[in-house]
Amino acid sequence: MTAADASAIVVRRAEARDADAFAATFAMPAAMAGTLQLPYPTAATYAKWIDDVVPGDYLLVAEFEGRVVGNLGLHAAGKSPRRRHVATIGISVHDDYQHRGVGSALLRAALDIADNWIGYTRVELTVYTDNEAAIALYRKAGFTIEGTARRFALRNGHYIDAHMMARITAGPATAAPATAPDNS
Amino acid sequence: MTAADASAIVVRRAEARDADAFAATFAMPAAMAGTLQLPYPTAATYAKWIDDVVPGDYLLVAEFEGRVVGNLGLHAAGKSPRRRHVATIGISVHDDYQHRGVGSALLRAALDIADNWIGYTRVELTVYTDNEAAIALYRKAGFTIEGTARRFALRNGHYIDAHMMARITAGPATAAPATAPDNS
Repeated sequence: MTAADASAIVVRRAEARDADAFAATFAMPAAMAGTLQLPYPTAATYAKWIDDVVPGDYLLVAEFEGRVVGNLGLHAAGKSPRRRHVATIGISVHDDYQHRGVGSALLRAALDIADNWIGYTRVELTVYTDNEAAIALYRKAGFTIEGTARRFALRNGHYIDAHMMARITAGPATAAPATAPDNS
Repeated sequence: MTAADASAIVVRRAEARDADAFAATFAMPAAMAGTLQLPYPTAATYAKWIDDVVPGDYLLVAEFEGRVVGNLGLHAAGKSPRRRHVATIGISVHDDYQHRGVGSALLRAALDIADNWIGYTRVELTVYTDNEAAIALYRKAGFTIEGTARRFALRNGHYIDAHMMARITAGPATAAPATAPDNS
């Protein structure tokens, strides 16, 4: 990824008009295989995703040269308030736009929300064990592998294992008190 | 656990009238702490659980000497058909009825459904790392620890780690063809 590429990536919140772009991403073999999505995706499925986002959850998209080529979901990890500190994320990038910093830009945006605006102290995800690029991306952002779920999901005729990764942070600091005006 | 105890345990499906017993179980300190439930449980919460069970999912209760003292949920693990082979379970036993085979009877019943009637080949669960009795119960039933989620949930003022355990099976066999009637 070059600096020029990175500057061409715009991350924003998904809107209703992005449903077709979601379907186009998930119609690509690698993007579909790398997730829990199914063959022959329909825009209607993703229109519902976009519409169903609950307050506090985020569905982000990345535009590369004006085209929506990736998406990220940042969700509260469960219904129990005892896991209120935990978020889960999932990222997908269109096959033709891999390795250009799209996933990295999406992840950076999501972790900024998680760390600095909601204060999640645990962010967790699952990633298929052979998705080396994604694992490297997550490691670089501070995720570590906590375990490996055997036969996690079906992918193209085989059950595939998934790593369970998580990133733990200390949580937000208290703001320093404002400095008193110097009246001396 | 003695044979007499085991014979005193009856496992059946939860019904609307069991909501009070659920609340009574989760009102106990250990049962509440060992789950993701919250202090001051209300029967209304569990009436909704019982009412909301979707086809194919199970909410079971165990009666010990006629009293409902434990419950188990067996649920499809997620919405994606790519994880259609996976179930998740959670068990709770009233504090006063621990170590009498209640959890074991519930787990046996759930695994019979999973193995022999739905054909799940992966059953997964989370258990707090210091819940040795539960971990031993799950190990005995064929579960292994696949990883450990750090700071999984809040419990009595501290974030507690949880093991992710799973049990993999080969799946159902094809029935042997019926033996042809012997006409010799």
